[in-house]
Amino acid sequence: MADARFYDRAGPFSLAELVDAADAEIAGAPPSILEFSDVMPLAEARADTISFIDNRRYVEAFRKCEAGAIIVAPGHVALAPPAAQLLVTKDPYRAYAKVAQMFYPAPPISGRSGGQTGAAPSAQIGERVTLMAGAIIGEDCVIGDDCSIGEYTVIGKGVHLGKGCRIGPNCTLICCTLGSNVVLHTGVRIGQDGFGFAPGAEGHEKVPQLGAVIIEDDVELGANSCVDRGTGPDTIIGAGTKIDNLCQIAHNVNLGRGCLVAAQVGISGSAKLGDFVMIGGQAGIAGHLQIGDGAKIAGKSGVTKDIPAGMTVAGFPAIKATEHWRNLAAIKRLRKD
Amino acid sequence: MADARFYDRAGPFSLAELVDAADAEIAGAPPSILEFSDVMPLAEARADTISFIDNRRYVEAFRKCEAGAIIVAPGHVALAPPAAQLLVTKDPYRAYAKVAQMFYPAPPISGRSGGQTGAAPSAQIGERVTLMAGAIIGEDCVIGDDCSIGEYTVIGKGVHLGKGCRIGPNCTLICCTLGSNVVLHTGVRIGQDGFGFAPGAEGHEKVPQLGAVIIEDDVELGANSCVDRGTGPDTIIGAGTKIDNLCQIAHNVNLGRGCLVAAQVGISGSAKLGDFVMIGGQAGIAGHLQIGDGAKIAGKSGVTKDIPAGMTVAGFPAIKATEHWRNLAAIKRLRKD
Amino acid sequence: MADARFYDRAGPFSLAELVDAADAEIAGAPPSILEFSDVMPLAEARADTISFIDNRRYVEAFRKCEAGAIIVAPGHVALAPPAAQLLVTKDPYRAYAKVAQMFYPAPPISGRSGGQTGAAPSAQIGERVTLMAGAIIGEDCVIGDDCSIGEYTVIGKGVHLGKGCRIGPNCTLICCTLGSNVVLHTGVRIGQDGFGFAPGAEGHEKVPQLGAVIIEDDVELGANSCVDRGTGPDTIIGAGTKIDNLCQIAHNVNLGRGCLVAAQVGISGSAKLGDFVMIGGQAGIAGHLQIGDGAKIAGKSGVTKDIPAGMTVAGFPAIKATEHWRNLAAIKRLRKD
Repeated sequence: MADARFYDRAGPFSLAELVDAADAEIAGAPPSILEFSDVMPLAEARADTISFIDNRRYVEAFRKCEAGAIIVAPGHVALAPPAAQLLVTKDPYRAYAKVAQMFYPAPPISGRSGGQTGAAPSAQIGERVTLMAGAIIGEDCVIGDDCSIGEYTVIGKGVHLGKGCRIGPNCTLICCTLGSNVVLHTGVRIGQDGFGFAPGAEGHEKVPQLGAVIIEDDVELGANSCVDRGTGPDTIIGAGTKIDNLCQIAHNVNLGRGCLVAAQVGISGSAKLGDFVMIGGQAGIAGHLQIGDGAKIAGKSGVTKDIPAGMTVAGFPAIKATEHWRNLAAIKRLRKD
Repeated sequence: MADARFYDRAGPFSLAELVDAADAEIAGAPPSILEFSDVMPLAEARADTISFIDNRRYVEAFRKCEAGAIIVAPGHVALAPPAAQLLVTKDPYRAYAKVAQMFYPAPPISGRSGGQTGAAPSAQIGERVTLMAGAIIGEDCVIGDDCSIGEYTVIGKGVHLGKGCRIGPNCTLICCTLGSNVVLHTGVRIGQDGFGFAPGAEGHEKVPQLGAVIIEDDVELGANSCVDRGTGPDTIIGAGTKIDNLCQIAHNVNLGRGCLVAAQVGISGSAKLGDFVMIGGQAGIAGHLQIGDGAKIAGKSGVTKDIPAGMTVAGFPAIKATEHWRNLAAIKRLRKD
Repeated sequence: MADARFYDRAGPFSLAELVDAADAEIAGAPPSILEFSDVMPLAEARADTISFIDNRRYVEAFRKCEAGAIIVAPGHVALAPPAAQLLVTKDPYRAYAKVAQMFYPAPPISGRSGGQTGAAPSAQIGERVTLMAGAIIGEDCVIGDDCSIGEYTVIGKGVHLGKGCRIGPNCTLICCTLGSNVVLHTGVRIGQDGFGFAPGAEGHEKVPQLGAVIIEDDVELGANSCVDRGTGPDTIIGAGTKIDNLCQIAHNVNLGRGCLVAAQVGISGSAKLGDFVMIGGQAGIAGHLQIGDGAKIAGKSGVTKDIPAGMTVAGFPAIKATEHWRNLAAIKRLRKD
């Protein structure tokens, strides 16, 4: 699942080691696979990998899953595919988090192995690239022609930049791929962990974030804005989209092309926005929503439902702007009665 | 227009080169000026510069404009001053953006030419200045006596600091002038591009931001706050104003003296605030508004209209606070009926 | 009051010097103490320290105060303890600010004395610690085993980290103590001054922030989030609490264990939150509130009152979520009538 450019995988691990990490009971098929090499989503898992199910929406993928081992709750055991060894636990998401942590132990946050400033020997640096003082280019990076990399900016290992990117000072770029002519202003943070935990009374367990950030051509990001990397799928910002200062783009967000996002906007995890969406300052968009092409979201709105293409919304919860203004007028009349 | 301390101008360019960049048709006076040296606003333009009009509010300045060339929409051609060569296009703002980009090609984001840590040889450093490890002072900077410049802070070329400023670690200061006794906490971003684009279906064209930031004496800015530079006019923060963490001050904002701005506030472009304005946390102020002296804006308010001096407002859209509380009471009664 | 690990105290100062700094009139007991060594809260003050009262809630502590000198308003003189010399002024908080500034003159913002990258000779660095390129560890720091410290991260003097902390690039840690297994993502700002001023028409006077930040085990903070240090008491983040990107935690906040705080949340000064509180994105909490264990605060809410344990609230001002939904329904019906 995880891109080898960015992630070093540990293992393989034996079934016993996985059972121990997951704090689970064994069930299902008799053990045939001796070693496991990776964690995988249900639909992509192979015989030498382990997967999990914690949501009944995925029962069909579970029935057909080819993983050698699957972490499941007791209620799903009866629906398991016959060849899978089952790791049974009351909290499969938490158990998955522990197992995934074992395969992907956390390195230093930049993903680099330490050491030097400047460009790593294994990095490929294009023509006419300007590295400002203190810029760090990690192992195996590819930096296109005519890029400038700002002072004290840290680029983690395996990051690719297209041509003509202008990266400001004091930025961090981890687990990401940038197209051409991307502009990152000062203090931009790309590719850090998303906010993913398996919550629980005994502590919130970190779920390894194994995706990346893909930023297409001609994107611009304002000072101190943040784009978290995906959980497995990627976080994507479409070509020509412009984002102002202090914005938050959470994991797995998919922003279309040509969007304009004003300052201090927050877009929650897995929201999917179409092309040429406009978002006013300090607006927020809840997780997993679909926002259609050309939608306009007024400043300070709080979007809690899907928005069809072309609609203008306002308020919190955000509704069609014309209805929002009528609500405000109705409240005003009420007060004056 | 642009301060030579901060901006290196390219050119001169021929009329043919300008027409080509603007993707425009030529009209108006027969060509007399052979070379153009700069872009200028209508009211300041001279014979060897090029200007533009994209808003009917500026028709009077357009009629009297002394620019050698002006970018106009077809509907404004008839009103043009007789001596100007006209570059006619459906989207004059976009054409201006392209021409201004030619005169002011984007350097590395800090505006420095590369190279060294420490202070550039051409910088003037006062008495008893402390440069912490990794601090960078750009070409032609002037740093007043008794300043301390934090670790890994980057000061771009031409920046002036008065006496006794305390600049935290990991800050960036570009295209700005600071008075005396200014305090910038960690991660503050001053002087980066404002969010200025000529929008369009074929892509949003960057409008070069050619102004500066002026921060007067005794101002304090909290961690990770951002102040964008002006588009041509400057962004100004008046003496004694204190701004908390994670605030956004957009291009051309003019904040008066002695204001108190709590955390996560956003002030949109060209808003003009008087003296001793108080703003609660997470409030937002829309663009181009006028806020009078001594106004108080409650936390989380969204200000969408001008506010007279001394008024206290609350809510979103922000209204007089007393009316806002009556609205809330009216809604509560309604629910209980 | 202030922890000597973080703060260098100046002085002692004579009564005359204090009177001069405070711009006050002398009253009360005849001068017996010749030199003063520190500022102290009323309840902790000793004979060689100076304290202040500016709020009638503290009259009982004032009556019993053992400070050698106390800054008071004229209306409190009659209630003074008999042994204290009184510095009488109309604005005791402002006078205190001036006196405290004299005892605690502001150093460079990182609190370091300048100079080197890498670890200071007086720092104690544990086993298997990774210092990435450009990491700075200040004087007298203690860094536990197995920590990694990111590129260009600046750790001020006296900071303690437990074992296994992962600190990202471009962070700043000042005046703080971290437990074990703390994760700070890129650009996190810990321990800078809180937003504390004695306001006034002649300028807002800085009140020295003399507390620290205490971050317990297993806390995680997202990119570009900020935690200000306490004014005298400390800012505390309880074990296992996870905070997303671009959040603001103000001075003296006390966050319990196991809280989950989504992106762009702001928590104002001296708010006290219980354990396992959940806060949605962009919500704000006003100062000095008490939020009970297990409370849930919906995204974008503005909390203006205490919340009992276990309650779910929403809206601005935040009320019980079920009432909030009924309000919204009532407004909608009203509009349609």
